[in-house]
Amino acid sequence: VSVLVVGSVALDTVETPFGKRKDILGGSAMYFSVAASYFSDVKLVGVVGEDFPERGVEILKRHNVDITGLQEEPGKTFRWGGKYHTDINHRDTLFTDLNVFEKFSPKIPNSYKNAEFLFLANIHPALQLEVLSQVDKPDLIVTDTMNLWIDTTLGDLKKVIQKTDILLLSDSEVRQLMDEPNLVKAGRALLKTGPKYVIIKKGEHGAMLLNADNVFFAPGFPLEDIKDPTGAGDVFAGGFVGYLHQSGAITEKTLRQAVIYGSTLASYACEDFSLDRLDKLTLDDINGRFKVFRDLTAFEV
Amino acid sequence: VSVLVVGSVALDTVETPFGKRKDILGGSAMYFSVAASYFSDVKLVGVVGEDFPERGVEILKRHNVDITGLQEEPGKTFRWGGKYHTDINHRDTLFTDLNVFEKFSPKIPNSYKNAEFLFLANIHPALQLEVLSQVDKPDLIVTDTMNLWIDTTLGDLKKVIQKTDILLLSDSEVRQLMDEPNLVKAGRALLKTGPKYVIIKKGEHGAMLLNADNVFFAPGFPLEDIKDPTGAGDVFAGGFVGYLHQSGAITEKTLRQAVIYGSTLASYACEDFSLDRLDKLTLDDINGRFKVFRDLTAFEV
Repeated sequence: VSVLVVGSVALDTVETPFGKRKDILGGSAMYFSVAASYFSDVKLVGVVGEDFPERGVEILKRHNVDITGLQEEPGKTFRWGGKYHTDINHRDTLFTDLNVFEKFSPKIPNSYKNAEFLFLANIHPALQLEVLSQVDKPDLIVTDTMNLWIDTTLGDLKKVIQKTDILLLSDSEVRQLMDEPNLVKAGRALLKTGPKYVIIKKGEHGAMLLNADNVFFAPGFPLEDIKDPTGAGDVFAGGFVGYLHQSGAITEKTLRQAVIYGSTLASYACEDFSLDRLDKLTLDDINGRFKVFRDLTAFEV
Repeated sequence: VSVLVVGSVALDTVETPFGKRKDILGGSAMYFSVAASYFSDVKLVGVVGEDFPERGVEILKRHNVDITGLQEEPGKTFRWGGKYHTDINHRDTLFTDLNVFEKFSPKIPNSYKNAEFLFLANIHPALQLEVLSQVDKPDLIVTDTMNLWIDTTLGDLKKVIQKTDILLLSDSEVRQLMDEPNLVKAGRALLKTGPKYVIIKKGEHGAMLLNADNVFFAPGFPLEDIKDPTGAGDVFAGGFVGYLHQSGAITEKTLRQAVIYGSTLASYACEDFSLDRLDKLTLDDINGRFKVFRDLTAFEV
């Protein structure tokens, strides 16, 4: 009856052409949870320091996110700082202070262990394996990763991928991981190593859902005002996994819809800093933009 | 009753990860003409040198392209050389020998002047203006351009754009031209300078059709085997303009279909070097892939 997410909870310092914010709420598990909460009950596992602000807990509670698994440890909360270019699709990381996240060891509360869907946000593959060893067999395991783990921890990453049902990664990551420049070939090769589906995230260029037989392509939403793209990938994952769970079935039909719901929520999230826009969505907002996505690629045969 | 194209006819030397070819048929007008010929009668204006091979004339004749306006001048044919990277979406130009193209002055034969649709391929804006001064008022003027003319001949380029109905350019070019990193904003700003529609070409990431009210997005076809992407933009234009002409109406409906037909032909063209694949297409091939494009973005609302 719920979706379990294990990932980071962070305080971000973000500068974009549209402003600068210090110590705003962020982290993959935060973004994922609030997005998924529009469709499903979410249980979060993560770690914060003693300085984590009350507003961080409040937003999770407001979205009915179960925070039994949100550990508080002595020290400071994980902090990330980044600056976006004029072309907001590019950014530089200014600092990464792991703080309490450095010694994070995910503990899955007993009340979480029967979660039906598991989202392993982008954390160290060894931690992702620790999580997998603690849960009952979930119906669906969705995993996110990044180039850092391909470079440094390929062995553990491959073990995680082998146990994953749906793998999310970027176009450059799938090319790097499979050492194959053609995206479709790289995705198809990856499918032979474990996952039933691969979702290739192309940032502003959209996302591709791939299995052995089908390709589905979701465009990036043509936003005129992007204030802050931080967390868009995690929000996408939240909308995707949350909707898929709510739909009650994992079929080509629901997977395609889930990709569009993920894209819908991600596009909204970019319209303001941190979780500010995501916090205030209505189901009408979500379903309205879902339909605009339909019109965006519709043509008569 | 026809489509007029003015552009380059070239002999290309191309190296991709899949092979190397010397002095193969190329040039914007060649690629455009063969693509458009699947839908409409095409009249070509261009220039070749004394060394232009008979096979170049044959392929145009085989596709019923009117070559009354193909001038032969003393000297050598325009030659271009390029090498593609392992990631075939990137290339380096190795040489550009303009040869007879350097003094090209387009002369529109009298039998061409009542052409209904005009495609101004990517040539010097001053030459594009010369063409416009020679034709009767066409029903539709479609123009292609490139960053070189934005850098060096902005005044003439703006005059051409002002007279253009549908402008084709790449994502980086529209950003540069309007000095606006947001693609939709840049496109919308461009629409205020003349064109009724702008088509933003994003290479492997597809194409976006934009007017003041609507956005249509066509994905790049997920090709597993790309042998040579040279000319893909001109083939896209050929399929787009050719189909639009054949459809007999310029509406949001036919424009969207035309973008997909353009994408369909462009995807086929990349499957082999030069015009080799494009030369041998059937209408069944074209309509089959057109429908695959439908499935690629289809989802249930």
